[in-house]
Amino acid sequence: MDKLLTSRIIKLKSFLNKKELQNILILSDVNIFYLTGFYGKDSGSILLFTGNDIHLLVSFLYSEQAKKSIDNKKINIVSYKDNKYRKLSEILGDYKTGPIGIEGNNISLSDFCKLEKLLSRQGKKLFEITGAVEKLRLIKELHEVSKIKGACKVTDRVFKNIIDSGALGVKDLSEIELALKIEELLVKNGSEGKSFDIIVAYGRNSSMPHHLPQNIESKDGLILVDFGCRYNNYCSDMTRTVFTEDLKKSDKFKKIYDIVLEAQQLAIGDCREGINCAQMDMKVRKFICSKGYGENYVHGLGHGVGLEVHEEPKINAESKMVLKENMVITIEPGIYIEDLGGIRIEDMVLVGKDKCEVLYGSTKEFIILD
Amino acid sequence: MDKLLTSRIIKLKSFLNKKELQNILILSDVNIFYLTGFYGKDSGSILLFTGNDIHLLVSFLYSEQAKKSIDNKKINIVSYKDNKYRKLSEILGDYKTGPIGIEGNNISLSDFCKLEKLLSRQGKKLFEITGAVEKLRLIKELHEVSKIKGACKVTDRVFKNIIDSGALGVKDLSEIELALKIEELLVKNGSEGKSFDIIVAYGRNSSMPHHLPQNIESKDGLILVDFGCRYNNYCSDMTRTVFTEDLKKSDKFKKIYDIVLEAQQLAIGDCREGINCAQMDMKVRKFICSKGYGENYVHGLGHGVGLEVHEEPKINAESKMVLKENMVITIEPGIYIEDLGGIRIEDMVLVGKDKCEVLYGSTKEFIILD
Repeated sequence: MDKLLTSRIIKLKSFLNKKELQNILILSDVNIFYLTGFYGKDSGSILLFTGNDIHLLVSFLYSEQAKKSIDNKKINIVSYKDNKYRKLSEILGDYKTGPIGIEGNNISLSDFCKLEKLLSRQGKKLFEITGAVEKLRLIKELHEVSKIKGACKVTDRVFKNIIDSGALGVKDLSEIELALKIEELLVKNGSEGKSFDIIVAYGRNSSMPHHLPQNIESKDGLILVDFGCRYNNYCSDMTRTVFTEDLKKSDKFKKIYDIVLEAQQLAIGDCREGINCAQMDMKVRKFICSKGYGENYVHGLGHGVGLEVHEEPKINAESKMVLKENMVITIEPGIYIEDLGGIRIEDMVLVGKDKCEVLYGSTKEFIILD
Repeated sequence: MDKLLTSRIIKLKSFLNKKELQNILILSDVNIFYLTGFYGKDSGSILLFTGNDIHLLVSFLYSEQAKKSIDNKKINIVSYKDNKYRKLSEILGDYKTGPIGIEGNNISLSDFCKLEKLLSRQGKKLFEITGAVEKLRLIKELHEVSKIKGACKVTDRVFKNIIDSGALGVKDLSEIELALKIEELLVKNGSEGKSFDIIVAYGRNSSMPHHLPQNIESKDGLILVDFGCRYNNYCSDMTRTVFTEDLKKSDKFKKIYDIVLEAQQLAIGDCREGINCAQMDMKVRKFICSKGYGENYVHGLGHGVGLEVHEEPKINAESKMVLKENMVITIEPGIYIEDLGGIRIEDMVLVGKDKCEVLYGSTKEFIILD
């Protein structure tokens, strides 16, 4: 693992060198993990590259964990008690540095202003640099792919557990209770837990793509589950929409389900190295539009998945990204109708040279639980 | 509820008027909920006050939920599909405004730069203003206190469930599984779920105050649980440390437990309107220091709780806040010893004129589960 982390640091430095940068502050917990092996979730840690030195600044609360996680002897672990920006400026006080890049998407405006003030006293300047480590993370290494596949396998098993338990298995369960049951199953099946707040939406609640589970039991014909796990720190993300016996014959769900599934398969068929993300999104959008539901497909086609459940690339109309081999993305079209309900089908795929590999084995048939 | 929300908006405007501000952008989901009744968790919504007008900008994905949640006819709900900052600058294009305050702790540096660029084309200026709504939220209204008490009651019941289940109840449960069991109990006992990622730490793992639950079962004599729920959107937060039969007689845990408990009771005895937060923290710190564990008490004494599980005021050495009636805070000293373990005892209290009210009934006796 140590070699691997070192090679990532070398790649980052070579990227910075090309931009003639010597100094960078990495603030994202996930990026720090990617480069050091220390995962201080929400710890507010800071990784500083300056010249040939690397300092990791962690709160007292995390210093034991950091020491245990980090093998790389070149990383100098510094802990702080109260004010991390003051500590950081003390460290930087020993260096004569040019401008210091800072991850602009991982610091609040308020914190940036505090730090800028402290460093300006040393005549040092900060500038925003976003996405340097995220760029490395775009292309998954082989061991990363295998961890992601592990996460997907757990997710498959949990979905099978739910389907196999049938209508009885979800009877009397509120949306919240089913979400918790899924979380429990994710752990029982060998993962570290959920990778994001699980969405369980019954009936018309499913028309809100980001619905938060409620204490309601009535399924009203439809159950949408959007969930994933964390497995060796890598995430999965999957959505399935299934139906219950109280599905009314008058409901248009079967027709809509088929359109969403066809749209999803269209995108999976296209997905490979060299495809433009915005074009991929557009083609699906046009297809759904041609079926009369253009207004009801209200989000992007997908997103990257890895150490984070939402990461680059974004697959939407505004994306400028072109897919490359060993990217991992979701493909998840949906149709949402206010006061009726919504249907979404989401898979994760591994982008290959000539095609993509769907990372789930879970069925996408129209299922009525019995 | 509508009247209540209107009165909060009036208070905010009066605060802004005193500072001669006409325009503010509120970006925190919780602050937007506090002022409008719409709770779009992680929705990235924006509430704009400009002159006499109020606009709420929400993603398409949340527009149905926003319409259903908001009674106040003065709030103009605008939904956007792709680029919210572009949409915001379109709305602002219709106004001649002076400088616009923006919640600096709720926007990333990257997003701020994007928005600043768009608005500068209209000759408009942004400046950071932090904590305007948080200031209002410091003092809890009566109905808020009753919701917080509801959250604490659920938390008490769940802790009692765990204690009553005894050693058998936690046997064979890994840290992750016990955390999930607690979460399930929180829902079964009437809450909307956990208010933060539950900490369950066994044995020496407890020496890390922010330990993430692992798949380990061995209790090694000690179980620390730090958990809370969300009840009518209000949070609770409680920590208890209990012991198991395999507690070794040689362990210093009983002695340390008594010190932590005495420290906590010292602070509870002092806590009332007019007390300076930094002084309160200092007194406890000195007490723990006098017992020889000064180096092992590595975090602040407590924090406010309300719509967020961590909010103002902070109770630590750097705090400049003075307590006022109807603030709700935690009091949670701890002693952490590397490779041995940690003990923390945390209550929530309601600050009163002459004393404080402890909001939990859960025992703080030294318990060995049997």
